[in-house]
Amino acid sequence: MYSKEELSAIIEDYIGRLPFPEEPDTLYEPIIYSLAGGGKRLRPLLALMACNIFSDDVKQALPCAAAIEVFHNFTLLHDDIMDNAAVRRGKPAVHRKWGANSAILSGDAMLIYSYSLLEQAAAELLPRMLRIFNDTSMKVCEGQQYDMDFESREKVSMEEYLTMISLKTAVLLAGATAIGALAGGASEADCKNLETFATQLGMAFQIQDDILDSYGTENTLGKKIGGDISEGKKTFLTTAAMEIADEDTRIRLAGLMHNKEMIADDKFARVLAIYERLGIREHAEKAVDEYTRQAIGALDALSVPAERTEPIRRLAMELLRREH
Amino acid sequence: MYSKEELSAIIEDYIGRLPFPEEPDTLYEPIIYSLAGGGKRLRPLLALMACNIFSDDVKQALPCAAAIEVFHNFTLLHDDIMDNAAVRRGKPAVHRKWGANSAILSGDAMLIYSYSLLEQAAAELLPRMLRIFNDTSMKVCEGQQYDMDFESREKVSMEEYLTMISLKTAVLLAGATAIGALAGGASEADCKNLETFATQLGMAFQIQDDILDSYGTENTLGKKIGGDISEGKKTFLTTAAMEIADEDTRIRLAGLMHNKEMIADDKFARVLAIYERLGIREHAEKAVDEYTRQAIGALDALSVPAERTEPIRRLAMELLRREH
Repeated sequence: MYSKEELSAIIEDYIGRLPFPEEPDTLYEPIIYSLAGGGKRLRPLLALMACNIFSDDVKQALPCAAAIEVFHNFTLLHDDIMDNAAVRRGKPAVHRKWGANSAILSGDAMLIYSYSLLEQAAAELLPRMLRIFNDTSMKVCEGQQYDMDFESREKVSMEEYLTMISLKTAVLLAGATAIGALAGGASEADCKNLETFATQLGMAFQIQDDILDSYGTENTLGKKIGGDISEGKKTFLTTAAMEIADEDTRIRLAGLMHNKEMIADDKFARVLAIYERLGIREHAEKAVDEYTRQAIGALDALSVPAERTEPIRRLAMELLRREH
Repeated sequence: MYSKEELSAIIEDYIGRLPFPEEPDTLYEPIIYSLAGGGKRLRPLLALMACNIFSDDVKQALPCAAAIEVFHNFTLLHDDIMDNAAVRRGKPAVHRKWGANSAILSGDAMLIYSYSLLEQAAAELLPRMLRIFNDTSMKVCEGQQYDMDFESREKVSMEEYLTMISLKTAVLLAGATAIGALAGGASEADCKNLETFATQLGMAFQIQDDILDSYGTENTLGKKIGGDISEGKKTFLTTAAMEIADEDTRIRLAGLMHNKEMIADDKFARVLAIYERLGIREHAEKAVDEYTRQAIGALDALSVPAERTEPIRRLAMELLRREH
């Protein structure tokens, strides 16, 4: 079996060698720039690890793993236009560097490019691969739409919030893992179990993200903490607080979240005080633990010797113990 | 064999019944609105006619034909954002009705939806279908990119212009026709011939479009003539004129095309006078004839009895004799 580091190197090498036409460079340069931006490459890593559980030949999962990563970077590119984000991974966002029109069109081409990588799947697996890829991609769009819709809404229920992060984040981890398992020759039942694993992992991962934004340190996070609160973003923490709080606290919290004049540190301290009183951090950590427990349970249900799942299990634990 | 009217009815019915989830309606409503906008449905019509040359069961080509039509409408949706176009087929463009962010995301979902229609292709044809669909879609993006790049350029050669319209228009007609033929069980050679037919037809069609914008009548065109000239758009006519004209005329023509203050009718008359002197209309009509001749030649090369190609031949002649 391959170590995480070996698989990461294989992915980085493969993505670095993806062929693109030279012309029109105005179309392909932003794509190459996006893909060279780095990032954790978590999705293709999950795909290769899932493949590696069932097969020692992980190369067969590489094109599909890369397809998922290209798709993921396409969503970031278009999301950055929609959010008017200036920076992505420490570099100017594509729409800031090349303009919105160029970013729209290069994003479209990236989405098409991800499908062209699927052409390399074994013919007998292609129908199922394509179906997983389509279902996954469409759900990611739905998640982004809910995220945009929720921005302008006063209140979002916990159920709605969980649906949104499931679609926006967990589904793509699940799709990557299922496609990798399929390429490795997993049975239908094992694919299903790995999909469950990655879905639950994705939920835990996203809630952990929300926790770190308030309770991480600037040092380990690599950016200023409290960004979500200062932008008035809806997170697991705000959603839980709005559900638990009495009416007075709810009105005060909503007022704080909408306030654009207050000094960020002051706003952050006041929101954290409310969280503290309501036990929101503990509530969120319990949710992370519960999703993690379910993720691990799905791994235990696989029809393979436990040692085959060691690397992917270790990756999951690393992700959830991370401080950034 | 089916008549054009029968095939059009089959397509309209199929597209009208395409299933979409109810939620999030903010994502799917713009898609349904786009697809209900009508249009000539030329691409799926070509696909079904190509299928019908080889098989009496045209239903098998329907999902792929619809995939091409959904893809085409996705490109219109995103192009309208990039061009900041207010109106599409007599109705407000999606980005004007729902906002640019919504139009970007719904367009993305439409592109994914077009791929999900390919899932219904016969498994043994899927690898080739997917390859044709990917190659075609990517080329359409390249064409749109060249079109945008050319806007800011002083001079575009005839070769560059022809490459651009080939990618932006002809390639999608060719892809639709090839996919339809494939679904109908055509041989590799016949697919190739039909692809050539549709490519040449697409070139003739686009140049005809350019001619009609200057030489059609408002009555038959359904919009004011001279729109391309008043917007300073590069067309076959302007490109030919810039190639043929002497230096003085070239400078005058470029000056006219850039002029945003002159009264539109005045500008139109002056440009037409230059065209007249250079014989541009005849030049363009000769190009249409030449592409048409090549298109028909490719039909003649098919390995089927001539009567099987009657409907698609008639469609081609109708398109090229059209006044709008």
